Amino acid sequence: MTRPTATLLVSCPDQRGLVAKIASFIYANGGNIIQADQHTDFEAGLFLTRIEWQLEGFNLPKDLIGPAFNAIAQPLQANWQLHFSDTIPRIAVWVSRQDHCLFDLIWRQRAGEFHAEIPLIMSNHPDLHEIANQFNIDYHHIPISKDTKLEQEEKQLTLLKHYQIDLVVLAKYMQVLSAEFVEQFNQIINIHHSFLPAFPGANPYQRAYQRGVKIIGATAHYVTADLDEGPIIEQDVVRVSHRDGVADLIRKGKDLERMVLARAVRLHLQNRVLVYGNRTVVFE
Amino acid sequence: MTRPTATLLVSCPDQRGLVAKIASFIYANGGNIIQADQHTDFEAGLFLTRIEWQLEGFNLPKDLIGPAFNAIAQPLQANWQLHFSDTIPRIAVWVSRQDHCLFDLIWRQRAGEFHAEIPLIMSNHPDLHEIANQFNIDYHHIPISKDTKLEQEEKQLTLLKHYQIDLVVLAKYMQVLSAEFVEQFNQIINIHHSFLPAFPGANPYQRAYQRGVKIIGATAHYVTADLDEGPIIEQDVVRVSHRDGVADLIRKGKDLERMVLARAVRLHLQNRVLVYGNRTVVFE
Amino acid sequence: MTRPTATLLVSCPDQRGLVAKIASFIYANGGNIIQADQHTDFEAGLFLTRIEWQLEGFNLPKDLIGPAFNAIAQPLQANWQLHFSDTIPRIAVWVSRQDHCLFDLIWRQRAGEFHAEIPLIMSNHPDLHEIANQFNIDYHHIPISKDTKLEQEEKQLTLLKHYQIDLVVLAKYMQVLSAEFVEQFNQIINIHHSFLPAFPGANPYQRAYQRGVKIIGATAHYVTADLDEGPIIEQDVVRVSHRDGVADLIRKGKDLERMVLARAVRLHLQNRVLVYGNRTVVFE
Amino acid sequence: MTRPTATLLVSCPDQRGLVAKIASFIYANGGNIIQADQHTDFEAGLFLTRIEWQLEGFNLPKDLIGPAFNAIAQPLQANWQLHFSDTIPRIAVWVSRQDHCLFDLIWRQRAGEFHAEIPLIMSNHPDLHEIANQFNIDYHHIPISKDTKLEQEEKQLTLLKHYQIDLVVLAKYMQVLSAEFVEQFNQIINIHHSFLPAFPGANPYQRAYQRGVKIIGATAHYVTADLDEGPIIEQDVVRVSHRDGVADLIRKGKDLERMVLARAVRLHLQNRVLVYGNRTVVFE
Repeated sequence: MTRPTATLLVSCPDQRGLVAKIASFIYANGGNIIQADQHTDFEAGLFLTRIEWQLEGFNLPKDLIGPAFNAIAQPLQANWQLHFSDTIPRIAVWVSRQDHCLFDLIWRQRAGEFHAEIPLIMSNHPDLHEIANQFNIDYHHIPISKDTKLEQEEKQLTLLKHYQIDLVVLAKYMQVLSAEFVEQFNQIINIHHSFLPAFPGANPYQRAYQRGVKIIGATAHYVTADLDEGPIIEQDVVRVSHRDGVADLIRKGKDLERMVLARAVRLHLQNRVLVYGNRTVVFE
Repeated sequence: MTRPTATLLVSCPDQRGLVAKIASFIYANGGNIIQADQHTDFEAGLFLTRIEWQLEGFNLPKDLIGPAFNAIAQPLQANWQLHFSDTIPRIAVWVSRQDHCLFDLIWRQRAGEFHAEIPLIMSNHPDLHEIANQFNIDYHHIPISKDTKLEQEEKQLTLLKHYQIDLVVLAKYMQVLSAEFVEQFNQIINIHHSFLPAFPGANPYQRAYQRGVKIIGATAHYVTADLDEGPIIEQDVVRVSHRDGVADLIRKGKDLERMVLARAVRLHLQNRVLVYGNRTVVFE
Repeated sequence: MTRPTATLLVSCPDQRGLVAKIASFIYANGGNIIQADQHTDFEAGLFLTRIEWQLEGFNLPKDLIGPAFNAIAQPLQANWQLHFSDTIPRIAVWVSRQDHCLFDLIWRQRAGEFHAEIPLIMSNHPDLHEIANQFNIDYHHIPISKDTKLEQEEKQLTLLKHYQIDLVVLAKYMQVLSAEFVEQFNQIINIHHSFLPAFPGANPYQRAYQRGVKIIGATAHYVTADLDEGPIIEQDVVRVSHRDGVADLIRKGKDLERMVLARAVRLHLQNRVLVYGNRTVVFE
Repeated sequence: MTRPTATLLVSCPDQRGLVAKIASFIYANGGNIIQADQHTDFEAGLFLTRIEWQLEGFNLPKDLIGPAFNAIAQPLQANWQLHFSDTIPRIAVWVSRQDHCLFDLIWRQRAGEFHAEIPLIMSNHPDLHEIANQFNIDYHHIPISKDTKLEQEEKQLTLLKHYQIDLVVLAKYMQVLSAEFVEQFNQIINIHHSFLPAFPGANPYQRAYQRGVKIIGATAHYVTADLDEGPIIEQDVVRVSHRDGVADLIRKGKDLERMVLARAVRLHLQNRVLVYGNRTVVFE
């Protein structure tokens, strides 16, 4: 599927005729739907859908699709997003000292697994500058202390604007973002090195070891003002045994972290994730 | 969702407007879609969909839905099936000597996991008669030998008709059905005790042990004239090690077999499985 | 391996020569070791081992093995247990209203997966009496209220003594045992319907749904005075999606619960689990 | 555990006293066992063990341990290998055009997950020369055609000798090695991109897609003269659905391949794999 497509993500109060109305809008304008999926949350009374269709042969020019769909969406009280596959999102990867997720994200981007660019790496440490050089990506070292945090976050926001960043990926960035930051930029995916809600916060592997669990996990989620409480996109686990010390848990966890983070980023980039409340619908 | 629903399973050559046409048919008659999913196989040029809607408030009486939809389906060259959730399918479970899948299926049916009845157990051995008694299910012992096979299959077909069976579940039935049988009754799900296409045929655990595999599997598939070659509905695996002898593989495999078979039967009963060619689309 | 064996579980401060001393004790008396495994926890400075050997041809009579080994164990400051495979442990299964774990345990015992007897089912509800009858197992209904708990626990302890119970399996027994009870009888395995330490306490599936997790779990652990805090024997997980409501989580969880509980009970019955601190070593 | 250790891998006909004799040998010379594991294959009448002990305080100098142990091993008719953790094995990675396994192996080696050096990359294509440069590893491009194969294999063997290679890792090397080659150098691990014995040979993902399997796998095994028939070290799987085309299977498979290959290489480097017949014992 290399031909350009448009994708609508819609959520609205459940009511009759939603699929018919949205599908007819696309058909009436000559669109060929290549994937459509929907979900109804009956408790919440909410209808959620993702529809992707080929732009080739679609009668509406790209800049009119939004306004035209809005005429349908408004009476339905629908929230909606429209994405085009030929607009390439720009990712900033934020790291601290660990390189495994960074390496993995870069490799996947280079391998064509992510339909995105990575023009910017940001870090509160200088350690991974070399990797940035190796792959010709700009690296900004912005140290953070308790006292300088808010001020430094201003710099970070300026950089995100400057580089026209669409998505921030916290790839083992060991700092908490302030509520103010998240309010100003909210397209942020984090990887937490535990099976949330088990072991939120610091040192999850150490605590998993002490609790004597037989399985460890990793969780990719959108960042909200509440640490480790944002909507979960993806989780996975791996078996451990009494033979595994903390160092083994960390090692096994690294594989989990990069897998889970990569899957979440990919799902996000394909516009397959719809957040409502503190939950996600993942249209796979 | 205990209110009655109708489900359409449709496959047809891919073309514009399919979702719109089918969804509009339901909307125009006042139906409320509760789940819709679709898949396009671009290589095969095939569109496949499953749509489920509430019968409550639907303007067409049940016996007219089929004919009305056919008027839409014919110009699309569509194959379609229509199912109603208030029609309870009837299952015949076929066994030989092993009881684990039989027990599991009965327990799930009693627990409400299957929306179906189990009026009939058939076996080429008398061993499990007691279990049938325990749960008040008719048990027919029909021994099979090379010479009597075709003749006995006639008896089996007669019983299926007599009990008005919709689905045969081969729950470790260790006999191969003839091509003639399958031609006359083709709603049959089998559980094979290996990760197909590895180890088709007899003694898969023994052969898995000899090959020294580190993972074993089980496969639930529809039965066709070619042994172990039918469309796969569900598979799963479990890890084994050098410590596991053949007896351990058999024991671990039993858990796999009952899980995988149960999932496949449940998916079938919910009309979530669409076969095309030798493949299945499973609308989960 | 149906010939009788003896199994030693030993833990002691780590020091040179432990394997040699224990293995030589068995060899000197003519024993044939069929499995030996050991683990050293360097942080805790602890050596833990499990050794199983055939009784056939072993020169010491069974009642002298313990005293003879004690002479070796004492200078090593070792804790040890000795088990004989021809002594059949007796299990009491405790339930409330749900039958899936009970059914599964009985089926596995009947199928020979557990080397144990189940002479007793206890419940705070009368609902599952019928199943007990079906399988000829004694059923005692002992209702529990806040006011009667301690008094009823006396009755329960009396029954455990009367039936000579070695192991209590809480198979979805929805009551918390008092610290006093656990002090008097501490061979108790519980199945908790979450991936501990996530969602301890009540209604884990409801809370997992609300948190929007993508994976749910189950945990089998020994019971201690602290609810859901005992040493973990086994855990497993299953993937869920936005399509799964609370009822689906409960259904999927049932399969997990019975698998995880069965594995833990089996490991315990084979004397493969050694507890130290709040952790277990599982010699698989 | 950074202090140097010695590891014995032993296999011999099963008989009484094996654990005692081997453990006593180590204890008598002042060794501290840090891990001991054993397995008895009763069908084959074979005893297999792995024992690792600290060299610190061990009374025998390294070059005498072998001869001294041989005096014990010979009357037992034992095959044995002795490894020292302070001897760093040297790996040659062989690739064709795909870079994912190569990248992963280098990253893990750099991250300290492999206790080994990678001085050599060999390929039948020039494509990955750049990566070798990036990490300062020698790259030899040795094109292979039907006619030149045996002659080129001579060059390859010469290079292995020159670089003093202990282990060859076929990291998606898309050529079959001749029986002659394998006879002369047999420490070779291959990653096959299917769940063997399903889909041996070429194009496993294409064939998995056509068969409509619901799970795909990868297999790491030692290379023998029979293609894809060598002793399996490690396998793993990942779920796929009807939504996954061949390209998705390849993408998902890449993650599997690098995980499974890395685990196998790590187990081999830690001397945890013992081959007997066409099977492996993996002492984890």
